[in-house]
Amino acid sequence: MNPHAHQIPTPVAHILTVGDELLAGDIVDGNKAKMASCARAQGLEVRRAVTVRDRLEEIAEALRQAAEHADVCLVSGGLGPTTDDLTSASVAEAAGVSMVRDAEAEARLEEKFRRYGRPMADANRKQADFPEGADILANPIGSAEGLRSTLPGGRQCQVFVMPGVPRELEKMLAEQVVPRLHERFGLITIPRRVYRVLGHGESSVAAKVEPLVAEARLRSPGLAAVYVHYRASMPEVSVIVEATQGDDGPRATVEELASFDAPFIEVLSPGIYGIGAATLPPRVVAAMVEARLRLAVAESCTGGGLGAQITAVPGSSACFRGGIISYDNEIKQSLLGVAEALLVEHGAVSEPVSRAMAVGARDRFGSDLGVGITGIAGPGGGSPEKPVGTVHVAVADGSETFHKALRLRGNRGTVQRAAALWATKLVWDRLVARGVAAIDHRHD
Amino acid sequence: MNPHAHQIPTPVAHILTVGDELLAGDIVDGNKAKMASCARAQGLEVRRAVTVRDRLEEIAEALRQAAEHADVCLVSGGLGPTTDDLTSASVAEAAGVSMVRDAEAEARLEEKFRRYGRPMADANRKQADFPEGADILANPIGSAEGLRSTLPGGRQCQVFVMPGVPRELEKMLAEQVVPRLHERFGLITIPRRVYRVLGHGESSVAAKVEPLVAEARLRSPGLAAVYVHYRASMPEVSVIVEATQGDDGPRATVEELASFDAPFIEVLSPGIYGIGAATLPPRVVAAMVEARLRLAVAESCTGGGLGAQITAVPGSSACFRGGIISYDNEIKQSLLGVAEALLVEHGAVSEPVSRAMAVGARDRFGSDLGVGITGIAGPGGGSPEKPVGTVHVAVADGSETFHKALRLRGNRGTVQRAAALWATKLVWDRLVARGVAAIDHRHD
Repeated sequence: MNPHAHQIPTPVAHILTVGDELLAGDIVDGNKAKMASCARAQGLEVRRAVTVRDRLEEIAEALRQAAEHADVCLVSGGLGPTTDDLTSASVAEAAGVSMVRDAEAEARLEEKFRRYGRPMADANRKQADFPEGADILANPIGSAEGLRSTLPGGRQCQVFVMPGVPRELEKMLAEQVVPRLHERFGLITIPRRVYRVLGHGESSVAAKVEPLVAEARLRSPGLAAVYVHYRASMPEVSVIVEATQGDDGPRATVEELASFDAPFIEVLSPGIYGIGAATLPPRVVAAMVEARLRLAVAESCTGGGLGAQITAVPGSSACFRGGIISYDNEIKQSLLGVAEALLVEHGAVSEPVSRAMAVGARDRFGSDLGVGITGIAGPGGGSPEKPVGTVHVAVADGSETFHKALRLRGNRGTVQRAAALWATKLVWDRLVARGVAAIDHRHD
Repeated sequence: MNPHAHQIPTPVAHILTVGDELLAGDIVDGNKAKMASCARAQGLEVRRAVTVRDRLEEIAEALRQAAEHADVCLVSGGLGPTTDDLTSASVAEAAGVSMVRDAEAEARLEEKFRRYGRPMADANRKQADFPEGADILANPIGSAEGLRSTLPGGRQCQVFVMPGVPRELEKMLAEQVVPRLHERFGLITIPRRVYRVLGHGESSVAAKVEPLVAEARLRSPGLAAVYVHYRASMPEVSVIVEATQGDDGPRATVEELASFDAPFIEVLSPGIYGIGAATLPPRVVAAMVEARLRLAVAESCTGGGLGAQITAVPGSSACFRGGIISYDNEIKQSLLGVAEALLVEHGAVSEPVSRAMAVGARDRFGSDLGVGITGIAGPGGGSPEKPVGTVHVAVADGSETFHKALRLRGNRGTVQRAAALWATKLVWDRLVARGVAAIDHRHD
């Protein structure tokens, strides 16, 4: 760590993503979030993100703006072999240097193609061309190597260019960019605390939290300057409390921010499930694995989405037995043992059926907990009594079955995702009730 | 339609998304893609997207830059009731007008809260404040109404501000923004053709396609100026061919672009599955529903992800019977009838087991086609013979079972997603073989 770090004002970062596809709306720009998250975790202040098309002059212009306002510019995209890959040449243009072929990079490229067992097209040689004086960033898992260059101007902005392929970008950020940032800036992480809540609206969360924040501002100069914001992705809302930056470092300590834990938990219970970066599924998986409990699911309107949320968590096989996607009513009977009478009397989308599905999942899979989800995701299938968004979720634990009726808003995807999350919250609540899960602080 | 549309140069659009959470990397900016996609579909040329923090001066500065370079600026975020919601005030700042409370908007707000059955916090009244002279954009499904203002400068840039909640944004774009864009600019859609391929790398696709493009450039002035780019989201690659813009409109017609269909299909088969915006799952669902075929799945490493991909498609209940998530080997035996001997001899991740799972799914659900997926998604569980990314997918149709062995690269999520897509492609290939599916042009 740089002992003078506290004397240096926080370096400012810009993010630049390059690609026509990003401006065509064809794909969602996950790389922007990855780079921003990495920069922030290293203590950089990310002030701006820009996306431009694959045009040399537009990329170069964005780099010139970064050179004027930022100390670091993280760039992804446009390093491929095709004619629309122009990012390296744009860095050369902005830096006022020429492009030169790097013989060692060319040899590595040839070696990679040999290893892939694929012929190397001549166009690929372009991936060995770099702006003069650039520092090459290794890419062990793809053909596009990255680069670091210094842009002209008073800030000597460090530009890091990385591939657009997400896993190559992630690896290069962690292995090549982060160490260079540390070396240059001796960075300090900005204290920050995230409170994760499921089932209250954003303004209701704000109304509960803001009096506590107002009161805390009187307690210390660090807390007086604390920055509070909200992030809503229904049915989830997060409250983010972070220190602001003074000229000599962050104005509040982690310990000061943690003084919000107890009062926030008090006013936000039972909706609040955790503190920190980890979302609900990894918390549920961790708690179940630790308590040696096993889970099975019966999904109707979510069609496998709950299983997918759970199994997205590495290591979930230690607690997840499996599930039945009973999209069809016959399946609810034949594979889950839901009584025909229940289906006839209450309809497939009903509290009794969700309960029977939960019990059926638990029985069929021999698990400790069973989940049942049935509902109407839309756009079709709604009725006046059971409009689109009507969902019943239930969790059976062998002695009792717990149920929640939901009226979800949004399109099909939103309803499906929210229904699966609510089911996960119901499981979480059972784990809390058993004393095997608790609100704690986790960065995952 | 404006008869003079061809005389007007294509209007330029900028996209602006506002929110600390977007620059913290907490969330992926889906709104940017939504707005860009909408603007492009209306014939605007989207040149730049910018993301700034919830700071009045930073938002206003981004608006001033848009006013200088763009005719339209689509903005989302920062319309909420909390203190960090500053977008409307920033528009007023950039436009040089003051904020005024709109009595009618305030009444609508009160009415909404009455309808929600929630008390209206005083902070919410702020959502009835708009820049002087702004045109208010209705939001029937949320409390934050949007606005349209004209920014000063020669371009008279039209700024449209919308909420950050995705479904509110979508509705406002479609119902409020698009009609205003049409009225003002008399827009023409830019001809564009997307060829969707699964299972070739980006550079292999480019190598097959580029000679055909080079040849076509000689055929007409419109094709000479055609713009070709690639979008890779492994295992999928798309080739996008679009007309460029001349001063009097697009340089090539849809018919000219469609002349690429036959030669592209020839060189990209059997990887190519479609033309147009629709992805593979909706194409599979549409073909199966039309042919009255039914599908069931047995998923191991994808944990429900294939079912979720299929049931994300509205109307999929007409062809999807359901599935079994056999995350545990016992379940493969008990619920899918996979013989223990197969599991012992070949291991759960093997061709014979994937075939038995496909047959088991088909039998248990009484469907026409059954899918089996078994593999190692990682990060744990790999071995030298069966490394992470080893996946077997199979499709059973009653008379025969088709199989594909995969070695997928990437992290857990990438492997899971790619495995589910490959399984869908195997289903697609069966539908093509039966003559009930074909490569056609679809905008969904």
